Amino acid sequence: MLENNSVGIVTAQTAHFSEPLTLQSGEVLPQFDVVFETYGTLNAAKSNTVLVCHALSGNHHVAGKYAETDKNAGWWDNLIGPNKPLDTNKFFVIGLNNLGGCHGSSGPSSLKPKSSHKSEKDQPYGASFPIVTVEDWVNSQARLLNHLGITQLAAVIGGSLGGMQALQWTIAFPERVKHALIIAAAPNLTAQNMAFNEVARQAIMTDPEFYDGDYYAHKTVPRRGLRIARMLGHITYLSDNAMGEKFGRKLKDKIKYSFDVEFEMESYLRYQGDKFAGEFDANTYLRMTRALDYYDPALGYGGDLSQALKNVKAKFLVVSFTSDWRFSPERSREIVKALLDNELTVSYAEVTALHGHDAFLMPDTHYHNILRGYLSKVEV
Amino acid sequence: MLENNSVGIVTAQTAHFSEPLTLQSGEVLPQFDVVFETYGTLNAAKSNTVLVCHALSGNHHVAGKYAETDKNAGWWDNLIGPNKPLDTNKFFVIGLNNLGGCHGSSGPSSLKPKSSHKSEKDQPYGASFPIVTVEDWVNSQARLLNHLGITQLAAVIGGSLGGMQALQWTIAFPERVKHALIIAAAPNLTAQNMAFNEVARQAIMTDPEFYDGDYYAHKTVPRRGLRIARMLGHITYLSDNAMGEKFGRKLKDKIKYSFDVEFEMESYLRYQGDKFAGEFDANTYLRMTRALDYYDPALGYGGDLSQALKNVKAKFLVVSFTSDWRFSPERSREIVKALLDNELTVSYAEVTALHGHDAFLMPDTHYHNILRGYLSKVEV
Repeated sequence: MLENNSVGIVTAQTAHFSEPLTLQSGEVLPQFDVVFETYGTLNAAKSNTVLVCHALSGNHHVAGKYAETDKNAGWWDNLIGPNKPLDTNKFFVIGLNNLGGCHGSSGPSSLKPKSSHKSEKDQPYGASFPIVTVEDWVNSQARLLNHLGITQLAAVIGGSLGGMQALQWTIAFPERVKHALIIAAAPNLTAQNMAFNEVARQAIMTDPEFYDGDYYAHKTVPRRGLRIARMLGHITYLSDNAMGEKFGRKLKDKIKYSFDVEFEMESYLRYQGDKFAGEFDANTYLRMTRALDYYDPALGYGGDLSQALKNVKAKFLVVSFTSDWRFSPERSREIVKALLDNELTVSYAEVTALHGHDAFLMPDTHYHNILRGYLSKVEV
Repeated sequence: MLENNSVGIVTAQTAHFSEPLTLQSGEVLPQFDVVFETYGTLNAAKSNTVLVCHALSGNHHVAGKYAETDKNAGWWDNLIGPNKPLDTNKFFVIGLNNLGGCHGSSGPSSLKPKSSHKSEKDQPYGASFPIVTVEDWVNSQARLLNHLGITQLAAVIGGSLGGMQALQWTIAFPERVKHALIIAAAPNLTAQNMAFNEVARQAIMTDPEFYDGDYYAHKTVPRRGLRIARMLGHITYLSDNAMGEKFGRKLKDKIKYSFDVEFEMESYLRYQGDKFAGEFDANTYLRMTRALDYYDPALGYGGDLSQALKNVKAKFLVVSFTSDWRFSPERSREIVKALLDNELTVSYAEVTALHGHDAFLMPDTHYHNILRGYLSKVEV
């Protein structure tokens, strides 16, 4: 069943790019695929495009369903559709899977283009897939827009790592972005955030089934490591209070004095970890966390974010959530300050929310009204 | 070299208990050893004893050195010694290793007492060592006092999990405790704290070298899991700010675009993880985290901590640290409130400190002066 105001049944498309892409690391991707979806209709002036950038474990399936019987809709379906805050009656919305991903765009688990040697069999990139950065993603996204004949974005929007991409769009392509909506993001990660990423990566990389990233060839999956990484992730997505509200110290049953599930929270974490480990690619997880670690537009400007943003022209909506300890409001305010230093037009909303970092994905009325209000004034 | 005001060269002792100990789980330890150290001299009235309870990875070696050439002194050496805040000219101080530990007291890695079958070889308890709780520890600590002929404690002191034991002493043995110093503790863990414990345990228990806890027999060590657990621990012991101050986003070298160490913080975490994995017993780690999870004196009183403390007679010093997000000041204040509800004498200090939970181990002047002042007024 489709909900009211759904974008309906959607289909993913794949764009192939045969022109090499030089990455920030200096490595070159000789060719690559980008899988994407679109919702709404591109207007004649090609002026109504909104690009949605995904976060760590997201992908191109942002809204709608592939079949009426699908249990779940796209990951930001509550935001996008006819008459929803990001209104597809007005906007042409693009969602895509980033390079290095595991949902159809070129990444570690996709097949490496055959070399000229005919004897060589198709095999996945594995560890040989390069490390990609937020800057690389934005460059590849620009290629996708070129492919679609779209010069300028009415808006780019993203939460978390997606918000970093939205910010990077305004730096890398100041002429191509009219509005940027940067939600639950930061201008770089704190040491603590990077430390969580490092623990997650080490859990994956020391899993004996990881085989230095070439586990496809060994027909194994570093499932244990990925499971630990995801459990850890879930702790950081929720606030202490949200975990308290949701689970508190609730016991599953009578105390058994064992290492089995005793508390409901344990059951939740194990379930989330197992689910993710069965779906997601470990090499992609490593790359997504590294992209988060590396992003730091102020690095080339002696840490001066205002300087890093000096050529930016877009207008901004920045949103943070009070209980988000992963990307705290304080970090969003750093972005706001640097934008204001450059006399840019910025709206900023600090939303009172219990759900921590995850709040950016939730249909909180106050939050959604802020997005609706801002987007309703975006001219197309 | 020994520092000034050191307790000097110390020797650990072992007390053997042949009377069975019934644990909270209902299991019975038929016999057990407790390893301990003492500093200072027991006075004739036997009224000057201070018991030091250790936290997750602590042990009985609280102060002094085993040899002048030892690199490190006991874990709370900065606090304990002649003329130090916990002054061994005045007090007789006891440190011990808790049951389930891996430093000499009976635990999973110690040899199981031989059964009557002569053919059975000595082998470690392994997974068969029972789960012990804060309540069990306090009972076993009381046995140690009996063994030493000490009826009453001038004070019991502990930080973190050690603070929970100090609190439990005042509940279980109200007549035997004159003062309790409860530092960086909480009346129970939050869901978030328990979640971190669960991730650490899952990392250990899913390590293929864990063998359901019987890795001694397999001559393996679940080193990978223990390493991840410790890395994660270190993130939670430090505040976000402390990690920021200590490491920030400092790079080791030029960015290599790799999963090797790029940031200094990564190097620190890996070092700490490796070191711990080479020293500590995984089965002990599991049990220590479970004891943390389970402790909740209010559980039998419908969550009413004030009721749980209704028979308590001790006087209290409660100390918390502003940047401690693992056991936040708010949680310490819950203890203070419940004590005051019972019209007990309580001093409370909230110390401004940058170092997060770890602050309780550090020689901060303000913090140490608070302890010194309080302890100087304890009558012996």
